[in-house]
Formats: sequence, structure tokens, C-alpha cells
Amino acid sequence: MRVLVNERGAERLLARHLWVFRRDVVSGPEAPGLFPVYWGKRFLALALYNPQSDLAVRAFRFRPSQDPREALLENLDKALRRRLPHLEREPEGGFRLAHAEGDFLPGLVVDYYAGHAVVQATAHAWEALLPEVAERLKPYAQSVLAKNDAKARELEGLPLYVKPLWGKVPPRVAVREGQVRYLVDLGEGQKTGAFLDQRENRLLTEGFRGERALDVFSYAGGFALHLALGFKEVLAVDSSREALARAEENARLNGLRLKTLEANAFDLLRSLEKAGERFDLVVLDPPAFAKGKKDLERAYRAYKEINLRAIKLLKEGGILATASCSHHMGEPLFYQMLLEAAQDAHRTLRVVEKRGQPFDHPVLLNHPETHYLKFALLEVL
Amino acid sequence: MRVLVNERGAERLLARHLWVFRRDVVSGPEAPGLFPVYWGKRFLALALYNPQSDLAVRAFRFRPSQDPREALLENLDKALRRRLPHLEREPEGGFRLAHAEGDFLPGLVVDYYAGHAVVQATAHAWEALLPEVAERLKPYAQSVLAKNDAKARELEGLPLYVKPLWGKVPPRVAVREGQVRYLVDLGEGQKTGAFLDQRENRLLTEGFRGERALDVFSYAGGFALHLALGFKEVLAVDSSREALARAEENARLNGLRLKTLEANAFDLLRSLEKAGERFDLVVLDPPAFAKGKKDLERAYRAYKEINLRAIKLLKEGGILATASCSHHMGEPLFYQMLLEAAQDAHRTLRVVEKRGQPFDHPVLLNHPETHYLKFALLEVL
Repeated sequence: MRVLVNERGAERLLARHLWVFRRDVVSGPEAPGLFPVYWGKRFLALALYNPQSDLAVRAFRFRPSQDPREALLENLDKALRRRLPHLEREPEGGFRLAHAEGDFLPGLVVDYYAGHAVVQATAHAWEALLPEVAERLKPYAQSVLAKNDAKARELEGLPLYVKPLWGKVPPRVAVREGQVRYLVDLGEGQKTGAFLDQRENRLLTEGFRGERALDVFSYAGGFALHLALGFKEVLAVDSSREALARAEENARLNGLRLKTLEANAFDLLRSLEKAGERFDLVVLDPPAFAKGKKDLERAYRAYKEINLRAIKLLKEGGILATASCSHHMGEPLFYQMLLEAAQDAHRTLRVVEKRGQPFDHPVLLNHPETHYLKFALLEVL
Repeated sequence: MRVLVNERGAERLLARHLWVFRRDVVSGPEAPGLFPVYWGKRFLALALYNPQSDLAVRAFRFRPSQDPREALLENLDKALRRRLPHLEREPEGGFRLAHAEGDFLPGLVVDYYAGHAVVQATAHAWEALLPEVAERLKPYAQSVLAKNDAKARELEGLPLYVKPLWGKVPPRVAVREGQVRYLVDLGEGQKTGAFLDQRENRLLTEGFRGERALDVFSYAGGFALHLALGFKEVLAVDSSREALARAEENARLNGLRLKTLEANAFDLLRSLEKAGERFDLVVLDPPAFAKGKKDLERAYRAYKEINLRAIKLLKEGGILATASCSHHMGEPLFYQMLLEAAQDAHRTLRVVEKRGQPFDHPVLLNHPETHYLKFALLEVL
């Protein structure tokens, strides 16, 4: 039982990309599972295989193994051991325990929220392994929830459900991050929405002090809470009333004050500029404007517009904290966009920090799809 | 007395680039100095001006001032204040107090070595201001040395010399960096060669532990000393016998052991590979292979060759710490080169840290020439 790929597929795996698309599969088993991948007689990789999926081959190891199942779970163990020192230091924190391809665990994401694990599986071969996954998580968490309600599962021919795999899952937990805590819902039908990938970037903003800060696309107040520690006034803006209610709840939990405003970010930035409002720090953490390559031109313009407006809202010496989580908006393009916004605004941007994903959202250079988050702290002069 | 530039020059300054070349200067004073720059009747910037230099205009401020001299020195004061908390925390450390364009101080570099300042001026207008520069450095340093022996000064029509401006300059000092100290020569005719821009990156390598580490292009042992704290064996390689003698002296100063080897890096990497040697960590901190745009293709191949060979020398899970200080080898190209090296080696590179210049070597997005240092910590899988 093996998967045979063509030369194009072989080239990808030899270059250590993890994916081979169905069009490059010559032959393979009829049912999904874990199989070795060959190019003729040459072994290439062990992979999660699903003949029904466009993404038929997702490699997880480039050396053979007698026991592919154990080899895959070893990758999970390795990922968990990498996080262990952090969990021990911050047991009430929030971390990503397994980050899919970045941890050689394609289709598996495991998050940790103050002692409780949440598993999301989007590749078929994981489904049969979930009890084993829960077992391996036992030393790390008090409960394990399978949150398998992502649409992507349908493409793999998997059912949508949310259910506890192990332990008692609380409906919500409070996660500690630096000097603040925030609430995460673990219940059915809830978005967790903690955006753990911005954890270290949020923590960076804890160090700033000033009069007025603005957090656009604030969602549940992720950045705004940290800013409220050091700024006299923090305005948290989002288009969702529900998200802002959560931001206010989080603020109360910390005894902090936020001003919240339900508004479209583009309209708001324009009207703040017109009103001559000025800030010491502005956070722009928008949703992915470019979901696919075809959106890129429009997305570039949208990123540039919000950044241009934010730059104009900043006092001399103010800080722009700006992000993009679109993989298609690559790092070079992101900085090109920022340069153009600065040039148009006739302002100078001095780099304070150029950052990306934290250690628990690892990037593989050979698999560029693992890299999506850009984050810059810039002094506006 | 003003400098008039053409439209192309104006566009550069309006976009907050700091330089206008002589060909875009319409008219200006005959002697070098500090002057306002105009496009017709529109004020653009205050600049260091030298009609004899190809780089005729180097802006340092985009608002007018009655006293350009004072405005320029204010930029120096701002740069010094930015460093102050670091100097107070680490008075025996090494820092760059003024980083030319990055601090809006074109043509001026000031380094701090354990209480002693070293000034390098490469723009004509600074020459008359040096006594004032030394005066402003008094609160920060016990002595100030003018190290004005860079060839670039001849292009500006300036003499070459080294002389104390103030205080008693010791012939050498020991600079503390994390857990180690290293020697810096301040005497005439000596290179200081401390490469302060890699300070934070060197400190990052202090955290690693293992059996064998290799520091190629080690020079005076910058990275090797930090590695010697955590690795049982550290091999420091350089093509200069003199540099390695200094590395050994630095090792003795710290009671650490280094193995040093005088060799060409390319030959050595090849022979280590042939001999089947393996390491837990390899540092590649080469000199700038691309001095100009025309060298880029050859430089790309050279960077790729050393990185490919270093990857092959690393054990599974080993760390590649790799840098490029060529401005022309931009960040996107640097990571493209690393990807290709990894693909050719059939190994995966997982990002541990992507870094650049530290806070005391600031980068202005609007003036891309301020960005030259790339540094990546990568796990080789």
C-alpha cells in the first residue's frame, strides 16, 4: 500500500514542500490513511493521504518508518515537548500546542487555554487517531475538546461536530497573557477567537506609555487590554457589537477602562482624520484582506489605505503597530505597502520591531504556506 | 543661501528619502555646510550639503529651523537619549550612539565602548561641528576619540586623521556583552572591529547548548565566545591569523576555550563535509559579498554555497545562525537564497528567529539604504 507520484510531485517533496496535489498522484490506495509516498522505486516521504481531497498528499516525515501511525504521533510528542517549558512557566497562559504543517502535523491544530486543550482536525487520517491524540495530551491538559466544526472538514468528507474527548471541559476559561487576562469560550457553537499567533506582539505593546491609543479591528480587545495598562485613553473599534461586548467584559475582568466604538474601520479612520484627532499609538490588526491570490491587488489597496490613514493620525514620534495575516500578502509586499503609505503621507517610518509568528506557530521556509503573519512596530516621524 | 533641487530631487525628499545626488541639484552655495533645500519656492528639508560630493544633499530634518546647526545637534541629543537607558544598565557594554541616516545624522557614526566614545565623520559639514559633538558626548563618555581615517572622507575633500577630541583615550578597553567580555583597540591605525550591529544576535546564541559548534568568519571570536559558554567544543575559523590571535586573547580573558583555525571558509566547509564532520550549531557571519549591485549574482551564489554546505554539516535538529550584511542582498533575496540552499540539500529549515539590526542601528523604511543586516536562526530538520 503506497502512493505513487509523478515527477512534479516528487520535485516538491524532494525540496521538502509538504503537499502534493491530486493531479500529481499517479496511483494510491482507495481509502484515506497514512502511507509512504514513492516516485518510482524511490521513497520520498510518509504522508496523510486522501484520494477524495484536492490536497491528496500531506507529508509529515521524510524518512521511512515501520509504523507511520507511531511516527506521526511522535511528531505530536515533539511539538508538545517544545511547548512544555512555556506551559510550566505560564500554566494559565494560551499557547498553540500543535500547528499543523509547521510542526509536521498536517491538518491538526491543538490550542491550550489555561489548562484546557482544544483539538481541530481537518485531514481525514486524523479522525481515527483522535483518541490517541487525546491520550498524548493528558500530561499537558485537564480536558480535551474536539472542535471539529470547520467547513474545511467537508472537503475531506468528514462530519462536523464539537465534543469532549477527555476530562471535563468548562464552558469558558480566563487566559493570562502578561499583565492581563481574557475570556475564552470553549462551548459548542462559540468562536474561541483568541488569536494566539499575536500573543507576543500584544505583549510587546504592554511596554508603551502615553495619552491616547487606538485599536482598530479590536475584536475582543486583544491589543486594547494591554494598551489600557499604559495609556490614559484607549479607543477599541470593531464592526461587531458582540465582539465589543466581550472586549468590555474582558476590561471589567481586569479592572481596566476601554472606550468601545462599533464602526467600519475605513469610515472611522477617515472621520477621525477629518476631526483632527491624534493618537500616540495605533494598532491595525485587520482580518485577512487577501483570502486568495486573485484578491491581492484589491487587498493591497485596502492595507495601504488603513495604514496611510493611521500614519496621519499619529503624533510625531507615535507608534504604528500594524499587521497582516494574509499569506498571499507576503513579507516583501507588506513592507512595500508600508513604504508607499509613508511616502504618500510624507512621513518617515523608523523600524522598532519587525516580527512574525511566535515559536508556537512555526514557519518552515520550505513550505511557504506556513508563513502568514507579519507584524511591524514603527515609529512615525 | 539655499540649495535648489529639480523635480526628481524634490520627489525623493517628499517621499522622505534623505539623499539627493549632485545631478539633481539645480544650484547651491559654493562651500559645504548646512542649508535649507527648496524646490522652487517650496521648502523641502534641512541638509548637509557638499557641492564637491556626488552625494550632494543629505537631509536631516523636514521642518524649517532658524538654526540648522542647532537642529542637527538636537538630532544627536535625541539619538543619545534613546541609548541612555541601555548605557545606564550596561555601562561596560558596547553600543552605537549615533547611526548616521538612521538617526537623521547623515555622515556621523558614534560608537560607545565601555565608557569611551569613538566618532567617525564622513560628511564635510560635520568637520566644523566636531568640537560641539564632543561636548554633547561629555555626559555619556569619559573620552571621545575622532577616528577620521576612512577612505570615504577623501571623496568629501576631508583629511584623514585619528586624534582624541576630549578626555584620556585608553589604547584598549574590555567591553562586556552578556556573559563575556571582548577587547577593543582604540589606538591609531587599529581596526576596532567590534561589529556592534550583531550584538543582540550574538547574545541570542548564548542560550544554546550542545557538543560541537562552528563559527565560520569568526574574526575576533564574536560569536564563538558566546558559544563557548554552552558547547563542549567550539571551532572558530577565519582567514586572518591576526584576527584569530585576538579571538584567542578574548577567550583567555574569559577563561574559555576555543579551537581556532586559519582557513578559507569555502575550502574549509568543503573539507569538513568530506571528512563527515557534524555540528550542533553553525554560525555564518561573512563579510559583505555584494559590495555593489553588479556583484549581486556572484554574491548570491557565494552566500548560497556557504549556507548549503553549513546545512549539510548540521545534525538533525541543529541550528544554523546565518547573516548577510550586504545592503544589495535584500531581505527577500536572503530568504530566497536560504530556501534554495535548503531545497538543494533536501533539508527543512524551520524558523527560530528572523532578525535584523538592533535598536541602536535603526532602519528607516523611507531610506532603504539604512537596512543592511539580515540574521536568521534556523533549525535544520
